[in-house]
Parts: sequence; C-alpha cells; structure tokens
Amino acid sequence: MVHQFFYPKSIAIIGATSDPKKFGNAVTANLLENKELEAEIYPINPKATEIFGLKCYKSVLEVEKEIDLALILVPSKAVPIVIDQCIEKKVKRVIIISAGFGEVNEEGKRIEQELKRKSLDAGMRLMGPNCVGIQNVDIGMNASFVQTPIEGNVSMVTQSGSFGAAILYEMWWQGLGFSKFANLGNMIDVNLTDLLEYFIDDEVTKVVTVYLENVIDGRAFYNKLVEVAAKKPTVVLKGGRTAAGMKSASSHTGSIATDYNSLKTAVKQAGATLCESLGDYIAAIKAFSFLPEPQGGKIGVLTNSGGSAVLFSDHSEEMGLELVEFSEEFKQKIAPHVIPLVKKVNPLDMIAGANGEGYYQVTKAMLEDPNIDIVVPCCVVPTFLEMKPDEHYKGVIRAWNETGRKKPIFPIFMSGSILEAIKDFAEKEKAPIFLSPREAAFAVKVLYERMKNHSK
Amino acid sequence: MVHQFFYPKSIAIIGATSDPKKFGNAVTANLLENKELEAEIYPINPKATEIFGLKCYKSVLEVEKEIDLALILVPSKAVPIVIDQCIEKKVKRVIIISAGFGEVNEEGKRIEQELKRKSLDAGMRLMGPNCVGIQNVDIGMNASFVQTPIEGNVSMVTQSGSFGAAILYEMWWQGLGFSKFANLGNMIDVNLTDLLEYFIDDEVTKVVTVYLENVIDGRAFYNKLVEVAAKKPTVVLKGGRTAAGMKSASSHTGSIATDYNSLKTAVKQAGATLCESLGDYIAAIKAFSFLPEPQGGKIGVLTNSGGSAVLFSDHSEEMGLELVEFSEEFKQKIAPHVIPLVKKVNPLDMIAGANGEGYYQVTKAMLEDPNIDIVVPCCVVPTFLEMKPDEHYKGVIRAWNETGRKKPIFPIFMSGSILEAIKDFAEKEKAPIFLSPREAAFAVKVLYERMKNHSK
Repeated sequence: MVHQFFYPKSIAIIGATSDPKKFGNAVTANLLENKELEAEIYPINPKATEIFGLKCYKSVLEVEKEIDLALILVPSKAVPIVIDQCIEKKVKRVIIISAGFGEVNEEGKRIEQELKRKSLDAGMRLMGPNCVGIQNVDIGMNASFVQTPIEGNVSMVTQSGSFGAAILYEMWWQGLGFSKFANLGNMIDVNLTDLLEYFIDDEVTKVVTVYLENVIDGRAFYNKLVEVAAKKPTVVLKGGRTAAGMKSASSHTGSIATDYNSLKTAVKQAGATLCESLGDYIAAIKAFSFLPEPQGGKIGVLTNSGGSAVLFSDHSEEMGLELVEFSEEFKQKIAPHVIPLVKKVNPLDMIAGANGEGYYQVTKAMLEDPNIDIVVPCCVVPTFLEMKPDEHYKGVIRAWNETGRKKPIFPIFMSGSILEAIKDFAEKEKAPIFLSPREAAFAVKVLYERMKNHSK
Repeated sequence: MVHQFFYPKSIAIIGATSDPKKFGNAVTANLLENKELEAEIYPINPKATEIFGLKCYKSVLEVEKEIDLALILVPSKAVPIVIDQCIEKKVKRVIIISAGFGEVNEEGKRIEQELKRKSLDAGMRLMGPNCVGIQNVDIGMNASFVQTPIEGNVSMVTQSGSFGAAILYEMWWQGLGFSKFANLGNMIDVNLTDLLEYFIDDEVTKVVTVYLENVIDGRAFYNKLVEVAAKKPTVVLKGGRTAAGMKSASSHTGSIATDYNSLKTAVKQAGATLCESLGDYIAAIKAFSFLPEPQGGKIGVLTNSGGSAVLFSDHSEEMGLELVEFSEEFKQKIAPHVIPLVKKVNPLDMIAGANGEGYYQVTKAMLEDPNIDIVVPCCVVPTFLEMKPDEHYKGVIRAWNETGRKKPIFPIFMSGSILEAIKDFAEKEKAPIFLSPREAAFAVKVLYERMKNHSK
C-alpha cells in the first residue's frame, strides 16, 4: 500500500502555481528539478493554463490518463471538494499537504474524519494533512516543499515536517544520505506503523529512523517495531517526553502525546535504538549508516591530543564501554611509528607531532589486531609543522579501506572551523566524522548494543 | 606574577628555527604574525644567524637587553642548561613548551623538581613543561604553536594543550573570541589557581573557563574558584571523571586525577558552572560570552517548526526550566503578525510560512513583554517561498538590538548545511547561534542558575 506513494507513475499537483510565494510552487519546482524522475507530472490549477512549461489542468477530472498520486496544496476549506474529485477520478494515493485541520480545532478534526471515511470507502489512501510531503531519493522524486537530500541508505518517517527538514539539513551537512523520507503530519490514515512495515522489506533502506510525537495504536506500532528492528537498525526519537514537550506537541499536531516511559521500555525491548536529543539521533544514524557492526566491545583509541582521548574515555566508561589493554605484540608493531616519548597504553597518545602517516600506521595496526573490535582515532588537526589539515583523516580512512572496512571506526575530529577541509573527502568516501568525544562514545554504544542484541 | 607572562616587553624564543617541521618554527611564526605586538622578539639558536629576517642569538646570554619572557622549545635533555642560562640572564618568566618530562617517567619528574627549585630560588617563574604556550589576544601575542583565535572576552586556562587547540577551533567557528589563553601542561610551578587569581581582576576577561585533569592543591583551587565565580561566570570541564578517563589523563600528564565527586560538589558550591562534555562547555561559554543575565526564569519560545520547539520544551522541563503562559495582552499584540491558524500558546508555532518580518515582530513582542525573561527563537530555515536563508536570524537580532539587548536570547538554528549563510552576520553582530534544542536549553539553564546564585 505504501509502495505506491513512493513509486507513482503519474503525479497530480493540486494547487500547483507559478507564484513563488506559495507552497504549491515549491512542490512543483522540486518535482521537476530531477530530470531522472520518470513519473508524469500534472499541475492542477483552475486559474492557470501552463505552469513551468507544463500544461495545467483545471481539475484532476480533466486529466485523461490515470493518476497514481495526488498532492493537495489548496487551502483547507477547498480540500473536501478536491478529495471528492480525486475519488471520482479514482486517484490511488493522496497526500494532503495543506494545514488547517485537526491541529487547529475540533471542526478540523471532524472534517478529517469525514475525509478519511470517504477516501477509505473508495479505496483511496491518504497521507497528512498538515505535512511537508514525501521523497524517494532512489528514483529522484521530491514530492515535498523541503529540500532534496543526498542519496543514501537511511529512510525516515517523521510526524513533524519541520523537524524532518532540520534533519535533512543536518544529514546533508554531515554527508549522510537518504533513501526514503515521509512526513505524516496529522496521520488521519497512513501512520507510523504502515511506514515501518514498508521499510522492513525495502531493499535500499539499511537504516530506519522515526521521529514521533504520539502513537495512535501503541500495540501495533510496538509489534511492527520488533519486526523492523530485528532486521534493520531502527533509531527512534520521541518529541513530547515531558509535560512541557507534550503540551508543545499537542499545540502543533492536535494530539495528546503518549506516555513516555512505556514507549521507552517498548522501544528498548524491541531492540531499537532510543535517542533523547537531536545530537544523539544524528550520531546513531551516522553509526548505522556508515559502519559495520563490531565483533565485540573492545575499543582501541589513538590520539594526538590528550584531552580529547581523556574525554572519550570518560564518556565511554559512563556508557559502560571498555578500553582494551594493548597486547605486547601490538606494542611492538606500532613502536616504529610513534616517537619514543609515547607511552604504549590505551588511549595511545602519539602527541601533537603525529602526522597522517602515523595515523595510517597505528589505525591499521588496530584494525588488524584480533584483540581490538572498535577503533577510535581522535585528532585535533594541527595548524603547524607543515601538516595538511586532511592528512590525519585520510590516513585513517586509507587504513580502513585497506582492511576492507571490516571493523567500525569512529574518527573524532573536534575541529569546527577546519572541518570543511575534510568533509568533501569524507562524503566521497562515504566515511563518518564524529564531532565530539561524547558523540563518538554514544555512537559506539548504540552500534555495540545492536551487536549484543543480535548475538542473544 | 601571571601578568608578566601575558604582557612581556621582550620575548626570547629558545629553539627558534627556520625549519617548518619544528615547533620552534611555528611559535616564531605566530609571534611575528601580528604586527601590532609591541614586544621585542629575540630568536635564540646556536646554529643560525638569522630567522624570519631577525638576528638570531646563540643563547639568551648574548642578548643585551632585558628578557621578560623566554619560551623554551629545545629537546628535553637540553632544557636544564637553557634554564641555567635564563637564570644567569635574569629572565623573569619562562614557558617550557618542550615535552619529555614528568609525563614520561620518574626521571622526568625528578628533573622537573630540580628545574622548579632552581628557578624559584632565582625568582624566575615557570609555566609548563609539556604545553602549547599562551596567548594574549588583546595585545596580539600568540606565544604558542597553535592557531590565533578571534578577539573576545573569554579567557581560558587548560591543562591539556590539544584540548585547548580543539576549543580554539570550535570557538573560532562559532564566532566566540578570546582574551587570554594559557595551557599549563605539567604545572610544575604556575598552576590553575594562579591563573584564576589573575583572571579575577583582568578587565577584558568577562568569562573564565577552565579545563582541568588534576588539581594539585584542592583547597587553594576551591577558594580561588569561589572568588572568581563571585565576580565572573566561570565554566569548568574536568577530564578524567571516571577510572578510564583518569587512566588516560595520567598517561598524558603524568598525574593522578582528583576524585570527581568532591570536585563536582566544590565547583557547584563555588557558584561556578560545571560541564561534562565538550558540547556543554561550548554552550555555557557561548551563553556567558554573548548574553546578559536574565531577570527571571520565564521562557517564551517562538518557532516555525513544531518538532524543534517540542524538543526544546522536553529538554527545558528535564532541566527544571519553565515555559511561561502568554498574557492576553501579548496574544493581542502578536495577532497581526501571525496567520489565523496559529494557536497563541507557548511555544508559539508560527508554522512553516513565517518569514523574517514575523520573527522580528514576535521576538520583539517577547523581548518587550514584562512577563517574559528569556526568549528562544527556534527556526528551521526554509528553502522555499522565496525566503532568504538569513532573514529569520536577522529579524531576531534586529529585535534584540532595538530592545537594547537587555534580555538574553537563544536562537536555535538546526541547520548544519546552511549555517554559513548566517554565521558571518552572527559574528559581525557578536550574537549567538545555538545548534540544537538541547544546546540551547543547557545554555538557558546555566545562565539562569548564575542569576539565581547572584540573587541569593
């Protein structure tokens, strides 16, 4: 059922317009932007004859061919009549992007129920209302008014559209790519559980992510979460954990948020990954999207910077992780690659003079060491000794590539201002950068926990 | 005593070199980079006659004029003889940047004690060894091998040099500026307490920040912390909170870390701000550096994005903060500036179409409302409706400027990839950007707590 939302052969944009101040313009522009998208696009607007060079239709009823998906962007009071037309036209799937329904008042809720009943009776399924739309990056379809992300293996379902947009920005900036994106808004028909169900067997989707504020049928959602998490890493962030948050949540989706503690327990029991902040959510997605699972929990840390490794060690212990003792063999192996001052303990502090070659050699030694499951290269990028700002990171990734990317690595580069120097390389290589010791420790934790769940 | 480290009239660089692969080169280049620095610079190297166009001396004894500050960058085994020469020359202050002492072995510790005894007997004070050096941005002095930060009101003392370098990068990137920076390394003489003492009365220093791994004299440190925190916001991050962290800390500074819980209690009792991650540390510094203290704890939130305000509300409640109920007057005042769909509750969700003018008007109304002490404008920057990526932020700052910056604002822009569009403006205006709901909530919390400490 959800499949047809993501793979329509023809799309009507009801409320398409040339006026750049309207959402119907943004959605049309986004759909036309990617020339690879093979679906037929039908702009619908009674007041126009042509939009972006395409013929414009007065209503869906004027379109001769079948319409798989209709996007509705007309004002809320015009939505019921448009829905009637869609039903008459036998449109298969509809996304009501327009706001002004259950999130506003009781009358809005009543209209929602009516729309739902009529549509389901006709076998027409609905997403929304009050949403930004959906995207299927695999086929170049941006059926939303938000920006197009880069291609990747993460699929996301979010109740909040603007939160989704924020995540799109953040993931783009961090080189993380999407497969499918759906914002469900008020969820009068298609809901979170339906999307989870769909992601289970979607081949491109490697990581499933959910941002939710309320759950309509908790039991069904939980059962589906168990299924999806058994097959794929599943990252969950709940907005409205507290009374204040719940109040905010209901002010914008018109629903009472679910009790957080029971959700928390359910998510954990399902073997999914629960996050409690935007930062943790991104860290977990990054770990699952880029990295293989470890074979165990033994961590090796290298660094040119005492402080960052100290902080990583603190966060690791607080999260129940373990830094391994280096073997004698390992110490001998790395000896030629570090200066004599360096104490051969974990974290291995190679001191400020360590260069890209040193990072390459020591990272490789750790990746090849049967005693180490997880490698954490910390680096404060030096601005001195003729070192290039990207040589340490490149050394790390070279070692990772040469060892077949079999073990997970968590490169911590605490270097806001010079990150640009390595970001392009990271994106090209599809390799992660962690921005703080805490972010990396959290990412290690969630990846390790998933491994432990598997081996139960 | 510390003053002369930061305001030397003459500086000798012992181990200055033209070889760009050595730290002595980086320090010399940094000292010569800023033409505003008025101190005389004397490169010292027995094997050179000229470095960077300056006459080079074989030893400090060859320099005719007085030397206020000597920076030592020769290999550790040559340090004792160089120290003897400094004593003979009656150099006032010395920073031993060279590593290879107490952090390496017992013999190193013994040599440190000898250097300390000789120097103090001669009235010569020491920083280091095993450090990156110091900076006084006010006078354009970068006496370190790390990069030069932007000018500002934050002063920092750090035990870990590379952690300091990471903070320099991060603060630079976030538009946060330094006054004074000191990395103390093994702290055989000048220690954390001395620096705190100095920052108390330093006029440019508005915010004092400390990164520490161990405290030598806990009682003296605590007493000084009470003094400095009574006068200025003081932000403390401790590396080596856990057994794993302590082990890492001692592997790189050669010292046993202090028991964390007693430190934690002491820092809080002193009225300083304790942070437990790099992110929190930066958030706290940002709040204190950019913002005035609030007059109370009542928070008003505006947003174009439900999700981000929901998450901010969650973090706020978890941190014991309070979102205010809007007054009838306020609701009437903002009515013309939001679309009718908008529910007039806190957080005020103005929905995705809200533009820069809307942000300006509503932020201003909150800043003028006697019922609101703290204003949190959340924004997911839209890529549609012809909005400019910086118009929302500019609207917020315009409102803040027009109301005399009397109340603190915490603009949350969860927009990694488009942050560049507003960063220059923020830096020019010396205004903050918070990168996530959690970061902003933590910043609100620390600023509000400082206010409460004041009013006790």
